[in-house]
Amino acid sequence: MIDAARYPLLSKIDRPADLRALPETEVRAVADELRAYLIESVGKSGGHFGAGLGVVELTTVLHYLFDTPSDRLVWDVGHQCYPHKILTGRRDAIHTVKQKGGVAPFPKRDESDYDSFGVGHSSTSISAALGMAIASAQTGSGRKVVAVIGDGAMTAGMAWEALGHAGGMEPDPNLLVILNDNRMSISEAVGGLTKMLGRMSGNRTLNAIREGGKKLLGDKHNPPARFVKRWEEHWKGMFVPSTLFEQMGFHYTGPIDGHDTAALLDTLKTLKGLKGPQLLHIITTKGKGYDLAEGDQIGYHAVAPFDPSVGVIGKAGAKKPTYTDVFGDWLCDMAAADPKLLGITPAMREGSGLVRFSQEYPQRYFDVAIAEQHAITLAAGMACEGAKPVVAIYASFLQRGYDQLVHDVAIQQLDVLFAIDRGGVVGPDGATHAGNLDLSFLRCVPNMVVMAPADENECRQLLSTGFHYNGPAAVRYPRGTGPGVAVQSTLDTLPIGKAQLRRQGSRIALLAFGAIVPAAEQVAAELGLTVVNMRFVKPLDRALILELSKTHAGLVTLEDNVVAGGAGSGVAELLAAEGSNLPILHLGLPDAFQHHASREDLLAEAGLDVAGIRAAVLQRWPHLTQTAGAARSA
Amino acid sequence: MIDAARYPLLSKIDRPADLRALPETEVRAVADELRAYLIESVGKSGGHFGAGLGVVELTTVLHYLFDTPSDRLVWDVGHQCYPHKILTGRRDAIHTVKQKGGVAPFPKRDESDYDSFGVGHSSTSISAALGMAIASAQTGSGRKVVAVIGDGAMTAGMAWEALGHAGGMEPDPNLLVILNDNRMSISEAVGGLTKMLGRMSGNRTLNAIREGGKKLLGDKHNPPARFVKRWEEHWKGMFVPSTLFEQMGFHYTGPIDGHDTAALLDTLKTLKGLKGPQLLHIITTKGKGYDLAEGDQIGYHAVAPFDPSVGVIGKAGAKKPTYTDVFGDWLCDMAAADPKLLGITPAMREGSGLVRFSQEYPQRYFDVAIAEQHAITLAAGMACEGAKPVVAIYASFLQRGYDQLVHDVAIQQLDVLFAIDRGGVVGPDGATHAGNLDLSFLRCVPNMVVMAPADENECRQLLSTGFHYNGPAAVRYPRGTGPGVAVQSTLDTLPIGKAQLRRQGSRIALLAFGAIVPAAEQVAAELGLTVVNMRFVKPLDRALILELSKTHAGLVTLEDNVVAGGAGSGVAELLAAEGSNLPILHLGLPDAFQHHASREDLLAEAGLDVAGIRAAVLQRWPHLTQTAGAARSA
Repeated sequence: MIDAARYPLLSKIDRPADLRALPETEVRAVADELRAYLIESVGKSGGHFGAGLGVVELTTVLHYLFDTPSDRLVWDVGHQCYPHKILTGRRDAIHTVKQKGGVAPFPKRDESDYDSFGVGHSSTSISAALGMAIASAQTGSGRKVVAVIGDGAMTAGMAWEALGHAGGMEPDPNLLVILNDNRMSISEAVGGLTKMLGRMSGNRTLNAIREGGKKLLGDKHNPPARFVKRWEEHWKGMFVPSTLFEQMGFHYTGPIDGHDTAALLDTLKTLKGLKGPQLLHIITTKGKGYDLAEGDQIGYHAVAPFDPSVGVIGKAGAKKPTYTDVFGDWLCDMAAADPKLLGITPAMREGSGLVRFSQEYPQRYFDVAIAEQHAITLAAGMACEGAKPVVAIYASFLQRGYDQLVHDVAIQQLDVLFAIDRGGVVGPDGATHAGNLDLSFLRCVPNMVVMAPADENECRQLLSTGFHYNGPAAVRYPRGTGPGVAVQSTLDTLPIGKAQLRRQGSRIALLAFGAIVPAAEQVAAELGLTVVNMRFVKPLDRALILELSKTHAGLVTLEDNVVAGGAGSGVAELLAAEGSNLPILHLGLPDAFQHHASREDLLAEAGLDVAGIRAAVLQRWPHLTQTAGAARSA
Repeated sequence: MIDAARYPLLSKIDRPADLRALPETEVRAVADELRAYLIESVGKSGGHFGAGLGVVELTTVLHYLFDTPSDRLVWDVGHQCYPHKILTGRRDAIHTVKQKGGVAPFPKRDESDYDSFGVGHSSTSISAALGMAIASAQTGSGRKVVAVIGDGAMTAGMAWEALGHAGGMEPDPNLLVILNDNRMSISEAVGGLTKMLGRMSGNRTLNAIREGGKKLLGDKHNPPARFVKRWEEHWKGMFVPSTLFEQMGFHYTGPIDGHDTAALLDTLKTLKGLKGPQLLHIITTKGKGYDLAEGDQIGYHAVAPFDPSVGVIGKAGAKKPTYTDVFGDWLCDMAAADPKLLGITPAMREGSGLVRFSQEYPQRYFDVAIAEQHAITLAAGMACEGAKPVVAIYASFLQRGYDQLVHDVAIQQLDVLFAIDRGGVVGPDGATHAGNLDLSFLRCVPNMVVMAPADENECRQLLSTGFHYNGPAAVRYPRGTGPGVAVQSTLDTLPIGKAQLRRQGSRIALLAFGAIVPAAEQVAAELGLTVVNMRFVKPLDRALILELSKTHAGLVTLEDNVVAGGAGSGVAELLAAEGSNLPILHLGLPDAFQHHASREDLLAEAGLDVAGIRAAVLQRWPHLTQTAGAARSA
């Protein structure tokens, strides 16, 4: 429970209506308490940190001025939603964030009426808010809709699609977009827009002059003011080329200091009353109010639990490398071996393990901003010229570039390697970040080679294999650490489409894809069964599968991907094509989006841990129980 | 063969080197011949027409000045590539365009070295060209890269992602982007950018003044010129707010008349020598030089064969409605019945059948430009407010909005109906437009209802079913006409997840999904087999499948989707989950991208016509032959 002595105002705010009952003079104090409480609670729970600190004032003022939840706040990405959750009924539960059964780390519609739009991926907020504004106008509900989007999220194309539509629509939609400009996405934001925003907000003195001038000019929809407005635009354009948003059809206000509650209150009161598409540009500091986070914005983007009086302490000593680490090391080693390698990330340098590569090979490192579509077609263009691009991407974000993978890479059989991190169950980030579908949506694409390593060393081997394969290939590996197999320093490849028989048993053969191999191996050993590390989802090892189908009474396929259309389904298709009707059991993820919990919990829930696999196999073939003891003692 | 008397220059141009051997004074004449030849040949073959006419001069000048194919021309979308193909070795074959074995309707890498990047979907050109420019710079090849993109294609987010990356990169990439501004995509282009471009090019007199002024100002990279340049920007900004591209980091030139060969030659000679990202803005007229096409740019976007001296004649008399027509009528009727219906198209009003809806319900019609991502999340936002959005989209373009379908619609179980046209085999447009994958990439998504009608009336019934279903649903229907079943005027629904037993036969049951039902029915009748119109890809009719599995010796699944992860694969998964090991045969499209040919040819090639289905069934179960005669005579 919140300490009422330390948080005299916040402890009484159970919902935004309580905040709105306070006098305006208390808003600053509420924001200060909110920031302190956020630091305290994220210190206990871990979670996304810097983004929330940056919008403490904005969150407070928005809930103070707007009639939430009837008015809609749409948070882009959602990294910054913790202060919003604290003010909207989840104050006392915020320490459970990301835990199973606890508060979700992103806005989620079925968690709260105040979470108007669920999110996790970037750059959806303007589209969603515009949809809400249009639909609300159709029914005459009169509700206000506000989207809050960071400058990083503005680098994604869909935000521009939405701006273009909103700005060009007739009649004008009533929509307020707040551009939260902290000149960061998760890594440093890159690209032309970001440079431009930097110029826009660079000269505070001139901005102040401009703000002063603006008050004289009135509404853009007032014809007499138009010529003056035009002049104003070009005058301000001389110093801050902020006309971009006006050109897109938005009425632009800003930039203002997003930590100044008085300025926010003043400006937002005015904007709330205006019609048409409005864009408010605020400048904030990621990590604001916690010096260590301000000083290391990337390091404090998301944190493990820590003591706020000390700060995050670097993890000590040698630890098992994650798959991300394995990829990052491989990328540097392969870059040293082949000058044609180029590395691409859509704004996930840290998450995807490209920090060292970006330092050692800056001329061959391309952070394209939050632009998965562009990342993939860029790679296709590079491949046309004989370069060997490697696109490092999370499984769920690859959905954003699916057409580009099909249309630009696969159809043309271009030599692009996809290094797919966070494949399969991801965990605490919830359904939006789950990589539960990628094997299905990749397997149906002609020309693709799709690989899933069973351990760290094989991940490296398969990356080399995909890199040397002359065509589109994907290596898909999970979040976090693997079984702990030592990674060799060589750049050896494995034969395409060849599986690895790990244990020759009898009666039933377990065909396991990727991260689930160790659990399958354990069950196979217990029950005396055959187990294969499949390595390739596509092409399958046809010869081995057919051989096993003749010497076994049944097959079990195992994968941490949905069963629907997954790797196991491919095995069944192969058997059907061969006229085999051997019994087959598919073990994989359910046909449902999973909630947030640890990867281990989610795998166990799906029956993909050792106990679950054993139970499923024995349920299908109960007679294996009697002989299991014999196999173990044999 | 080309008539050398009518085309004295063009008949001698077998490749661009022949063009480049001509004096510059002949370029205008070559362009005139090229236009005349294009009109003549598309009149014979049909195909994309207006876009090609608009770039006759540009195409001629680009091949005249640049060293193609060593220098790279990247055509966006590719509708406009016919003049390019005529100049690059395909002059005498252009009349075979879109035919099986003939010239492809879009640039295609394996057709010609001059086709530097295959395409079909919009807005990929800047990304691909940037990738080429980067890779070429890495190897020091010194080749030039030019992307040609229309204003319509600029409405898609990925073009902005690419502009942002190119404009923000260091070192500057050497890349020329030509914005071909005809103020059209396929329908009229919409949105804020288009309005802005309209303003930019609105005042020719002032543009002329500006062009005159520009010569004084020099290179942007020349520091002494910068202040003058700044002034110029704001002076021109007063009249034409063209600073957008400069703000993105490009050096902007234009607008110039894209039909003026002298202006194009002058300008492009200069730009060819400049370093860094360049944007040339040209103004063209779609259909230029053929009055009827200039006057009806939408109608002449793509044409059937016609007599150029007469023009395209409207198709006479009553004809079978296409599935697109069925959808268009249903949309209007359902809109009349339910005021909550809102219709969304990503710039495919004509192709998707929304013309009448757009006229009868302009306030409920949303053309969001070429913005599939935004279209879907916009729909999600609308659904949050209780509206009932219908997104009309082609199967292959849905790939562009896949993340939005998963992340914004399906995870949140929002009530959005996807009306998916061009599902399955599409035909003459080739692999880029094929809808061969959609059942696979939709079936793996939790919460989706996926339907495939067997005929026109059922298409209407399933649209109503999906519309009334409270959650994400998709109805997927093919290009063109169906079996010709009369469409009722009611808005009746069908039960979710219930298949239709069309014929009770014996021994083998054919489970057919969607457009393939009539062919399956015919084979079943011939061979005395059972046949089911499945209607639902997801959820499957579990009860019926299990019943059939007990009363039949084998199942055949049929679909015009790839077998990999398709509807039939779902049937196999269901049987496996039930412990059934009934023999199953999957008939569907191959694991390969299909070339362009008629839909009928492609279905036959894949063995999905009556003969192919019969042969496949009999190959698997040869004994059916002996009894087939008996069944027929019974």
